[in-house]
Amino acid sequence: MREVAIIGVGVTKFGELWNKSFRAIGIEAGMKAMEDANLSGSEVDGIFIGNMSAGRFINQQHIDALIADYSGMAARNVPATRVEAGGASGGVAFRQAVMAVASGMHDVVLVGGAEKMTDLDDVAINSVMDATADADWEAGMGVTFASLHAMIAQRMIHEGTATREEIASFAVNSHYHGALNPNAQFRKAITLDTVLRSGPVATPLGMFDCAPISDGAASLVLCPLEDAKKYTDSYVKVSAVTQASDTLSLSQRSDITSYGATVAAAQAAYRQVGITAQDIQVAEVHDTYTVSGIMALQDLGFFNKGEAGKAVLDGQCQIGGKIAINTSGGLKARGHPIGATGVAQVVEIAEQLRGSADKRQVENAKYGLAQSTGGMGSAVTVSIMEAI
Amino acid sequence: MREVAIIGVGVTKFGELWNKSFRAIGIEAGMKAMEDANLSGSEVDGIFIGNMSAGRFINQQHIDALIADYSGMAARNVPATRVEAGGASGGVAFRQAVMAVASGMHDVVLVGGAEKMTDLDDVAINSVMDATADADWEAGMGVTFASLHAMIAQRMIHEGTATREEIASFAVNSHYHGALNPNAQFRKAITLDTVLRSGPVATPLGMFDCAPISDGAASLVLCPLEDAKKYTDSYVKVSAVTQASDTLSLSQRSDITSYGATVAAAQAAYRQVGITAQDIQVAEVHDTYTVSGIMALQDLGFFNKGEAGKAVLDGQCQIGGKIAINTSGGLKARGHPIGATGVAQVVEIAEQLRGSADKRQVENAKYGLAQSTGGMGSAVTVSIMEAI
Repeated sequence: MREVAIIGVGVTKFGELWNKSFRAIGIEAGMKAMEDANLSGSEVDGIFIGNMSAGRFINQQHIDALIADYSGMAARNVPATRVEAGGASGGVAFRQAVMAVASGMHDVVLVGGAEKMTDLDDVAINSVMDATADADWEAGMGVTFASLHAMIAQRMIHEGTATREEIASFAVNSHYHGALNPNAQFRKAITLDTVLRSGPVATPLGMFDCAPISDGAASLVLCPLEDAKKYTDSYVKVSAVTQASDTLSLSQRSDITSYGATVAAAQAAYRQVGITAQDIQVAEVHDTYTVSGIMALQDLGFFNKGEAGKAVLDGQCQIGGKIAINTSGGLKARGHPIGATGVAQVVEIAEQLRGSADKRQVENAKYGLAQSTGGMGSAVTVSIMEAI
Repeated sequence: MREVAIIGVGVTKFGELWNKSFRAIGIEAGMKAMEDANLSGSEVDGIFIGNMSAGRFINQQHIDALIADYSGMAARNVPATRVEAGGASGGVAFRQAVMAVASGMHDVVLVGGAEKMTDLDDVAINSVMDATADADWEAGMGVTFASLHAMIAQRMIHEGTATREEIASFAVNSHYHGALNPNAQFRKAITLDTVLRSGPVATPLGMFDCAPISDGAASLVLCPLEDAKKYTDSYVKVSAVTQASDTLSLSQRSDITSYGATVAAAQAAYRQVGITAQDIQVAEVHDTYTVSGIMALQDLGFFNKGEAGKAVLDGQCQIGGKIAINTSGGLKARGHPIGATGVAQVVEIAEQLRGSADKRQVENAKYGLAQSTGGMGSAVTVSIMEAI
């Protein structure tokens, strides 16, 4: 297998982008990434797109072809592939693209993640998102994503592995960083009190425990590591991209306060690189809800069970702390256009490792990690990138 | 890159399977393929699923996780990836799986294609299918898939490259073979008159020019070619899998009687294998409509432009003719559960090349080809398999 490098990154602003179409934001992110990699476009020989449900959000399937077409690359018949894995769509698309370059089937690959969610009303949006839960045994019974996450939070509090305040503090951490990110949907720091007093969604979770509904796109350019210098001096190495599955339904798990797929994917990734969790200085984790952020920190091995919440509340996950978590603002503050999220996470880690993260820059980071989850941790990707 | 083999195949019966759920047919095809490859299941380390729109057909996204879960493989955290490319979803999933084995990232991979379409009413089904056309410039204007294909047929007749009778004869060829396939949705041979006198859909196309709405699933097991003998003596080599894109909208093409993506993918595939179209003895082409079947025969290089229709009408595409086309019955007679189709095509070619096609067996075939198209030829995969 060939080693793979990230040579270009691009993101749109995330938010309620009512004046921009799906194709417009997809192309904007892709153009930024190609420009960043000093490409004209003619070098690209493959496209991979993470998208959760354009078929339902904007009534457009086959957005692989749409992106190939509107980027002008269909004129050269460049193959484009759309991947879906619920919330992990972007992470899985990134993994397919890495595989394409590693295998030698492609040389210069554009990865895109995009979602346009705000064109539907809130009820319809939630119906689409709930479709990543088990349609027969969960969503069909009236369970929502928020209530499933609320059950996890209740269980954590019951077991004494996190307090309500510790869980809530994850949103404070995300907003602290989001305020520093010009492309974030929410750019305001908040207090713990704001989270605790926010309108109830599913007890104990309130509105500020939940990632927003967003539009946005993110993009990366990959090539063989040995060719990276031909394009740019500013690149990072992809050291591992692993993926693992778990049951679709949360009800089938023996323990709902840990995602087995995150644990499995993380362990495989650390093994591949020959490092441990303690070697990671900066990470983007999938905080669809505050509680999933807390779980991720433990499942990835950054903290022992019962200690992640304390660490976040204590400020240890801010830039300058023990480990910088979600410097982009995470799903909560940067925003969560579902298919874009997994790609945007890798964009942030690449920016950190090459030193272009501006006010959010973590100093001297060697290894960065991105964790992307679909459904209730039913599919998880873990990617480790390395500074060159 | 490692060379790749197909060591197991499985298909469900295609048709209106009202008493079987999506997950049931997905698992049935997968179990058949694993049994065929003499696997217990524990050898599988990756899953790739082609599915067009379970999100809209059965309100279930994230069917990668669903299949990992219900196959029992989530218990081992086996990664599962869903790929969508409209009608080419199965073909693209097969290509991703080949890439996964070729790259060395996976060793034994299960490929699945599945769709459950008949739970919706006909209007809703057509709305989903039309979403693979351009939502803004085609589907949104009221154009349907049938009418787009009718325009192609009109143009062919106008240019004199096919007559109405020649186009219609493609369905006769498909039904002739479908009658020999125990898993086909329609197992009756038909006459040219049946097609010509069938109820009008979009002039000049009638009901018998159109592939049906179907439920069904198909599955393959892949491994490195050098390991194939460890599992079975009955395997075939994957010699090339190529993919190409074209514009999403038919209105952007300079010529609507040829799919540029099919031409590009086929030429790349022949080049990789070092053969020409004339070396292929058996092929499965994507006959969503009779007219797309005729186009495919020309775009793949089996016949010159203007000669494919004559050849089909003349019976040259039946088993025993110049080249055996759609021995499975094709999309028209075997059925067209969209995500399953591209995988089922490869199943049929593998059966032909290893000599297990029973009453449909083509004698002494060395090379077989499968062509899968999405949208209006906006994404095309061409796979060439070789007998060992």
